[in-house]
Amino acid sequence: MSNVILTKNQYGKAENRVVRITRDTDRHEIEDLNVTSQLRGDFVAAHLEGDNGHVVPTDTQKNTIFAFAKDGVGSPEAFLLRLADHFTSSFDWVNGGRWGAEQYGWSRIDDHDHCFYRSAPETRTAVVVRDGDDTTIIAGFYGLTVLKSTESGFKGYPKDKYTTLQETGDRIMATDVSTRWRYNSEAVSTGFDFNAAYESIKASIMSSFTDHYSRALQETLYKMAQAVIAAHPEVEEIKFSCPNKHHFTSDLAFAGLENPNEVFYAADRPYGLIEATFAREDANSAEGAWVGIAGFC
Amino acid sequence: MSNVILTKNQYGKAENRVVRITRDTDRHEIEDLNVTSQLRGDFVAAHLEGDNGHVVPTDTQKNTIFAFAKDGVGSPEAFLLRLADHFTSSFDWVNGGRWGAEQYGWSRIDDHDHCFYRSAPETRTAVVVRDGDDTTIIAGFYGLTVLKSTESGFKGYPKDKYTTLQETGDRIMATDVSTRWRYNSEAVSTGFDFNAAYESIKASIMSSFTDHYSRALQETLYKMAQAVIAAHPEVEEIKFSCPNKHHFTSDLAFAGLENPNEVFYAADRPYGLIEATFAREDANSAEGAWVGIAGFC
Amino acid sequence: MSNVILTKNQYGKAENRVVRITRDTDRHEIEDLNVTSQLRGDFVAAHLEGDNGHVVPTDTQKNTIFAFAKDGVGSPEAFLLRLADHFTSSFDWVNGGRWGAEQYGWSRIDDHDHCFYRSAPETRTAVVVRDGDDTTIIAGFYGLTVLKSTESGFKGYPKDKYTTLQETGDRIMATDVSTRWRYNSEAVSTGFDFNAAYESIKASIMSSFTDHYSRALQETLYKMAQAVIAAHPEVEEIKFSCPNKHHFTSDLAFAGLENPNEVFYAADRPYGLIEATFAREDANSAEGAWVGIAGFC
Amino acid sequence: MSNVILTKNQYGKAENRVVRITRDTDRHEIEDLNVTSQLRGDFVAAHLEGDNGHVVPTDTQKNTIFAFAKDGVGSPEAFLLRLADHFTSSFDWVNGGRWGAEQYGWSRIDDHDHCFYRSAPETRTAVVVRDGDDTTIIAGFYGLTVLKSTESGFKGYPKDKYTTLQETGDRIMATDVSTRWRYNSEAVSTGFDFNAAYESIKASIMSSFTDHYSRALQETLYKMAQAVIAAHPEVEEIKFSCPNKHHFTSDLAFAGLENPNEVFYAADRPYGLIEATFAREDANSAEGAWVGIAGFC
Repeated sequence: MSNVILTKNQYGKAENRVVRITRDTDRHEIEDLNVTSQLRGDFVAAHLEGDNGHVVPTDTQKNTIFAFAKDGVGSPEAFLLRLADHFTSSFDWVNGGRWGAEQYGWSRIDDHDHCFYRSAPETRTAVVVRDGDDTTIIAGFYGLTVLKSTESGFKGYPKDKYTTLQETGDRIMATDVSTRWRYNSEAVSTGFDFNAAYESIKASIMSSFTDHYSRALQETLYKMAQAVIAAHPEVEEIKFSCPNKHHFTSDLAFAGLENPNEVFYAADRPYGLIEATFAREDANSAEGAWVGIAGFC
Repeated sequence: MSNVILTKNQYGKAENRVVRITRDTDRHEIEDLNVTSQLRGDFVAAHLEGDNGHVVPTDTQKNTIFAFAKDGVGSPEAFLLRLADHFTSSFDWVNGGRWGAEQYGWSRIDDHDHCFYRSAPETRTAVVVRDGDDTTIIAGFYGLTVLKSTESGFKGYPKDKYTTLQETGDRIMATDVSTRWRYNSEAVSTGFDFNAAYESIKASIMSSFTDHYSRALQETLYKMAQAVIAAHPEVEEIKFSCPNKHHFTSDLAFAGLENPNEVFYAADRPYGLIEATFAREDANSAEGAWVGIAGFC
Repeated sequence: MSNVILTKNQYGKAENRVVRITRDTDRHEIEDLNVTSQLRGDFVAAHLEGDNGHVVPTDTQKNTIFAFAKDGVGSPEAFLLRLADHFTSSFDWVNGGRWGAEQYGWSRIDDHDHCFYRSAPETRTAVVVRDGDDTTIIAGFYGLTVLKSTESGFKGYPKDKYTTLQETGDRIMATDVSTRWRYNSEAVSTGFDFNAAYESIKASIMSSFTDHYSRALQETLYKMAQAVIAAHPEVEEIKFSCPNKHHFTSDLAFAGLENPNEVFYAADRPYGLIEATFAREDANSAEGAWVGIAGFC
Repeated sequence: MSNVILTKNQYGKAENRVVRITRDTDRHEIEDLNVTSQLRGDFVAAHLEGDNGHVVPTDTQKNTIFAFAKDGVGSPEAFLLRLADHFTSSFDWVNGGRWGAEQYGWSRIDDHDHCFYRSAPETRTAVVVRDGDDTTIIAGFYGLTVLKSTESGFKGYPKDKYTTLQETGDRIMATDVSTRWRYNSEAVSTGFDFNAAYESIKASIMSSFTDHYSRALQETLYKMAQAVIAAHPEVEEIKFSCPNKHHFTSDLAFAGLENPNEVFYAADRPYGLIEATFAREDANSAEGAWVGIAGFC
């Protein structure tokens, strides 16, 4: 059975729930993250021979995450970069890895100094992929549900024997925005404000959802991408994976009622699923960094 | 086998996802609900003899919900009351039932006329229980996560051989507020503003989370109940079912670091679970209306 | 604000994930539980005055659960009874409580001595409620999905203006069986084999799903109850809360195809929801023990 | 804003819940799938110009799936291949796509002709990726939880200042097996028995979990891969993404008890996460087909 080879591997500790309170003054700050660390490098012996001499324990990776949080988080991207630097510089055989984080958003209750509620509808994401000297930073979010109650339709599509859908010029369009964007090498260097960029990109996406009649979700995703890339020079490419959350008009004829787009049934499954990647025209390619990220093309 | 009797039953259609758009003007409104209808009455023959002569189909209940939405929703409580009136007056053998709804909160994107995002961290709940001439209305919400990063402790508890917990005067206290309150008969009558009451009660709960040093989650629940009942004469009783979401201080001694309540590990399970019912001193009892509502004592 | 009173409360540690390996011989046994302990009694001072003198810490309850597991589990019911005895006898002010468990079923891989896979489709449940000298034991399970592809229909129901459903004599009937049954006082006494009873009652329910043409899910629930109560003298009453998981026949006329109940679309929501309680004719009532158990009437 | 380009896209209808009953005789068969169809090709105009002339509606894709189920399913792989052939041959501008399915396993209740219960602990998966003339078939499953209560340890790993883990020669090892394997071009041609291969590969994986002392989950994954590839010539490569589901020995010293690996606390998060890809030595590469599949490296 010598003909089976290990072609790729990564391992680590997943979903470390780190909460960092900054309490230098009475007005506390909270950072709430779910951090995953995975190392890549020479781990052949562990798989083929049961030799763990290179296997930095996942427990050690966990401990490192919590110890590094003592020095502050700052932004998920900056925090993951520090982890990447540490692991690849500390162990000769670790030449890369993948570090990921989710961040949950909190607001103050009544502007209180140390009382908060979890307020953000979306979950922020960050991924740092290190491969030798190359570092890729992918940011994003998921779970932001948006809906427009008019100014959307779907017409002009091809028909065949399996087509029963009726064309419409007025419908509800709704989706859960799931998106990831890749920063350029400039952003990787120290000093970029990932938190400000995040807020600005999210605002661009939300605003561009509102500013046009949508002839299909595909068109709207393009307009979102345009808005983000035009306003954010550090963004090389952006991906969307967005369900078309169908809202069907209830047929109330049985009760003698008309229903001019007032009463809808919100369906769970099946749903449309629209995925697209948009890039700055001269962007470099970084295909490898996206491997293992679910649900994007 | 004649000795098996049907003692209680209810049936209907669950989780009807109704979205109502009010579009009388260009500035649309959205109401987004998940409605369940269940009937009670004489359904013995269906169970014992397979005679469906009394079984108003669950499909008909669904149709009724969507048809009634054509006339508007207003508030989940008012909408459920209309359903209760309809079913108990339309079928002789239906003498009661249970109608429930969840409502999801949306906000406008950039104050737009017809573009919205789902913003509310909590899910609003409403239940109407009808039993002959009696009607009980229970409102509430779940999923509101709150946290105070100081001004809470836990001391003075009894110790036995199984006790290893250390007393503390400063910790994180966090919970997901899940609460239900019962309105008095005055609120049941036409005209009460359930939406305004909901917002006011939610604000009372959040504010009273902030205004004291908490010696245990039990004390904080009492203060929340006090605030709600004092300010809202229509509320007869209020129940809480609140996890103590543990945030453990990371022991960073291995790295030579102190950790004065700055870095925490947020644990999933097990968790403390504190449940309590508080009532206005002279409140009537309505135990029966709470049957089947999970997770409250 | 002296007019707010504490009417009921319980508190403890929820979802302690206890795995017990019995390894007295090379052939190991595994018991895998999720245990919740909640105490009732005199805890007024904790709520009203922040005095924790009576508050046996939830952490201590957790420790006790794991320490008691050292002496073996046996059955979830027996294990919870030991916890109930311990807490009510150890602390004067604890006069009752609620102890619950889920149990997950494992099978051996290739009849191996110490390698297992999680095999049970259903989750077993157990609840012990202690109130002074009274003890109630409620067992059950959830998550057992059953389906019959013929021999079920729905006819003879009342019609009104909201009715659009067509009668049918052949359809798919499917449900996720969620059930809880209460044992009589004899079973509470030492020595009853709760594990054998569980397997036998589950088998009764599954078999009685198959043995008749079902005119509605209501009729099938009654037949299940009959089978359980007839064959198990220790069972006083049994409750079911069962969705009607709709499988709609696809209309394939658009493709020129007939569909004689061969191709179905399995819908998520809404779903029928049928709940019923059946009791032995001379059963005593134990309503209070069911408070807080979700989804049963 | 002309500098934003569409680099990749796919779209379709996700999670079509198809249940197929074969009822040619009284002994029915059930096939229960969750099917997703996504098309790739020339859809630039839809994104950039709102021109839907190429956009085969997701609703049409849904209809096609249900219509094709009328001719039977057979295996998820064979069913998806038929969909791929249909869409790429019916529309000039569709030159590829991605079709996926989950399948849920049912067993007969008491060997009954038409009564079933959902029995499989794992969810079977299948993906067909078509790119011009190339077709890739990836099969797999997730959700199979396995545990060994002894014969596993973790020793010999590197230590640094962040290491607190103790070496152990006896522990519980448990994981949820999530795996995907790629078939070679021979299997893609008509006639391969994907169902038999699935059962055989699953059995190989389970057996190879039991047959060795495991020095780390990495070693066990390699042994699983060896077993699969050695016995199944149609398998080119296999990937695993497996959590190390930690079972920590409870320290019961507080109660004066020893705990020789009998009582464990099953932790939720964080968890180890071990991912590896193993290939037949001379396997071709098919990296592109894996894009968008979550959680594998």
